[in-house]
Amino acid sequence: MVKDFEQLLSESSKRMKKSAIRELLKLTNKPGLISFAGGLPSPLTFPTEQLKEISCEVLENDGPSALQYSTTEGDSDLRKILAERYAAQGLKITQDNLVIVTSSQQALDLIPKVLIDRGDKIIVGLPSYLGGLQSFHNYGAKMIGVKHDKYGMNSEKLEEELKLLHDIGEKPKFVYIIPDFQNPAGVTMPEWRRIEIIEICKKYDVLIVEDSPYRELRFEGEPQKTIYQLADDGRVLLLGTFSKVFVPGFRIGWVIGHPVVIDRIVMAKQSTDLCTSSFVQKIAARYIEKGYFDKNLQNIISLYKEKKDVMMKAFEDYLPEGVTWTNPEGGLFLFVTLPEWMDAEELFLTAVENNVAFVIGKVFHCDDSGKNTMRINFSYASKEEIVEGVKRLGKAIKDMMDKK
Amino acid sequence: MVKDFEQLLSESSKRMKKSAIRELLKLTNKPGLISFAGGLPSPLTFPTEQLKEISCEVLENDGPSALQYSTTEGDSDLRKILAERYAAQGLKITQDNLVIVTSSQQALDLIPKVLIDRGDKIIVGLPSYLGGLQSFHNYGAKMIGVKHDKYGMNSEKLEEELKLLHDIGEKPKFVYIIPDFQNPAGVTMPEWRRIEIIEICKKYDVLIVEDSPYRELRFEGEPQKTIYQLADDGRVLLLGTFSKVFVPGFRIGWVIGHPVVIDRIVMAKQSTDLCTSSFVQKIAARYIEKGYFDKNLQNIISLYKEKKDVMMKAFEDYLPEGVTWTNPEGGLFLFVTLPEWMDAEELFLTAVENNVAFVIGKVFHCDDSGKNTMRINFSYASKEEIVEGVKRLGKAIKDMMDKK
Repeated sequence: MVKDFEQLLSESSKRMKKSAIRELLKLTNKPGLISFAGGLPSPLTFPTEQLKEISCEVLENDGPSALQYSTTEGDSDLRKILAERYAAQGLKITQDNLVIVTSSQQALDLIPKVLIDRGDKIIVGLPSYLGGLQSFHNYGAKMIGVKHDKYGMNSEKLEEELKLLHDIGEKPKFVYIIPDFQNPAGVTMPEWRRIEIIEICKKYDVLIVEDSPYRELRFEGEPQKTIYQLADDGRVLLLGTFSKVFVPGFRIGWVIGHPVVIDRIVMAKQSTDLCTSSFVQKIAARYIEKGYFDKNLQNIISLYKEKKDVMMKAFEDYLPEGVTWTNPEGGLFLFVTLPEWMDAEELFLTAVENNVAFVIGKVFHCDDSGKNTMRINFSYASKEEIVEGVKRLGKAIKDMMDKK
Repeated sequence: MVKDFEQLLSESSKRMKKSAIRELLKLTNKPGLISFAGGLPSPLTFPTEQLKEISCEVLENDGPSALQYSTTEGDSDLRKILAERYAAQGLKITQDNLVIVTSSQQALDLIPKVLIDRGDKIIVGLPSYLGGLQSFHNYGAKMIGVKHDKYGMNSEKLEEELKLLHDIGEKPKFVYIIPDFQNPAGVTMPEWRRIEIIEICKKYDVLIVEDSPYRELRFEGEPQKTIYQLADDGRVLLLGTFSKVFVPGFRIGWVIGHPVVIDRIVMAKQSTDLCTSSFVQKIAARYIEKGYFDKNLQNIISLYKEKKDVMMKAFEDYLPEGVTWTNPEGGLFLFVTLPEWMDAEELFLTAVENNVAFVIGKVFHCDDSGKNTMRINFSYASKEEIVEGVKRLGKAIKDMMDKK
């Protein structure tokens, strides 16, 4: 090996720390433990039989191109189908506004690649999706956290931050928002709040990155228009993915935006992986065309709604006074707030002893706040496991309260 | 749209130019044109029937995990199978030395991500694979080109460059080498030259990136040991891929290296796309396990050997005096050198008028040299097209010679 390999590392690589969360999650790898930690969809929602049928059809009818390189922009059928679905919702887009990416995590890598130099500022919610924060951090972004209220990112606080920057002649490269069933907070932004945020971003001339992986998983309440549609001026990049509404194992996501920005993302993608797998893109396109996507989506929604309801009931039954939680209208996650004095990291260790796990909320906060919070996933565990897991969690919390 | 979007771009994005080659290749999109330009494998080599069988098997027996997230390191079966294949060649590795990536292009993105800061120097062959050069350029690497001779990268010239750097207290982050059937030169490095290069890199304590996508496509001559095996001290990163020996449409590649380096690549991959598609990884693992890979590889080799021989014969028959070319022992490409005074870019336009295309050699040279060279692909066109295409190419060259 070369001497002193560490010295060869790029600034970016030096910034990448072994994430504390990965180390903590290693502890959850023990038999009998019920995990609310990951973000995995339930395998019961995977359309195995339909995929057998479609895989064979695609190979039979379209083998040479399904197994060849795709264009960097993505399979033209899939782009068209996706663009049409969004257009039907009211977005003024065609397939030229859409690039297929290898998972929406890749979008969260390509966007900073195109926009971020070390030290550039961006604005993120307190809390925000960890995978986004990690990627922005790796590119050397300075993240400014804006607190949430029960409607998502607080617009007054956002304006304060933008004004502060404006006053010193700066502006952030973008504002990162997860408006629907936010990960981790489980909160959905109402239309009026979306409009407030858009108006502020227009006033300060700032781009918005709208990350929306759970949008179609709505159990209750009214669907909200995307920020992309409401802004209607090309300043929004809208991210979508099949991971939670179809299968994560295909690694297909997409970015919708102004063609000028999409073009830059395509250029960056070219040297990143040339193109996304044409095989899985063609299967996904057929899966939608055959009507399986929409039909199966209803089943996923029913299943996750049931699970969420079971969890809400179990929370009422087993979590002690002083603990509060969000009740999401969709998605995969909810957020629990413990009493101010409690440290969720300490609770995590007790919880794992009690054979239940979650993700500590601190990791979703770019300013290391949120130490008394935790993210709970309700899509993966079975209903029985949810009840038993919440019971164990309640016991762990009570034990910690008793020790105080 | 935001005002002055260009101003928001990162340094890296500003560096990414619309590649001249992409613009040239647009011209080749016309009916009747025979293209020797791309690097596409022949669709005749795609094992469509076997993949129908295996896709169904994988979904039937392993659906829940084939459609779920994989680990960032990659599917454990596939890593084990690949590591064992290399171990059988004599490499001292286990699956801990191997990470699955989403195409070897992703490896060419992750390696500079881990190692390169703007202005860092690296050494590349004159010529070298364009996708590698583009990615290194996007990370801001300063590329130092080392000329090839008929054994690949010239070791004396490599030592000269390393000594020059050493004398000013610098060293490159790595040396980038494609030792087998080099893209674009079609040259294979003999063992003694590999050893010379290794000794020099050991003397100056430099990492080696060994990019080997065509290694298993050997038509004739003796297989050479990998630089990884010959160096045997963990200073080499060895890149492999299924794109040319199985199917490109799966986007599966891998990196073999010292666990310390692999660990850094895994960390970087985590925020880049989380993991590679588990579905295609599981299919690929079964494809090897069932013995289809090795059997089919023989068919690919036979087909490409035939095509190469047809092309060699056509070159003899139709290319005018003063034009020389490499005769590769394997792979997909060969390299043509025109008389010194000729400009391959000018020839390209005439060739396209004559309905034949290639890639101009200049784009593979980090120092813009090689203007009288061109890369020719022989894997994609049919044997009839090869003869006809070379005839047209010969005519275009003669026309240009006559005009002089």
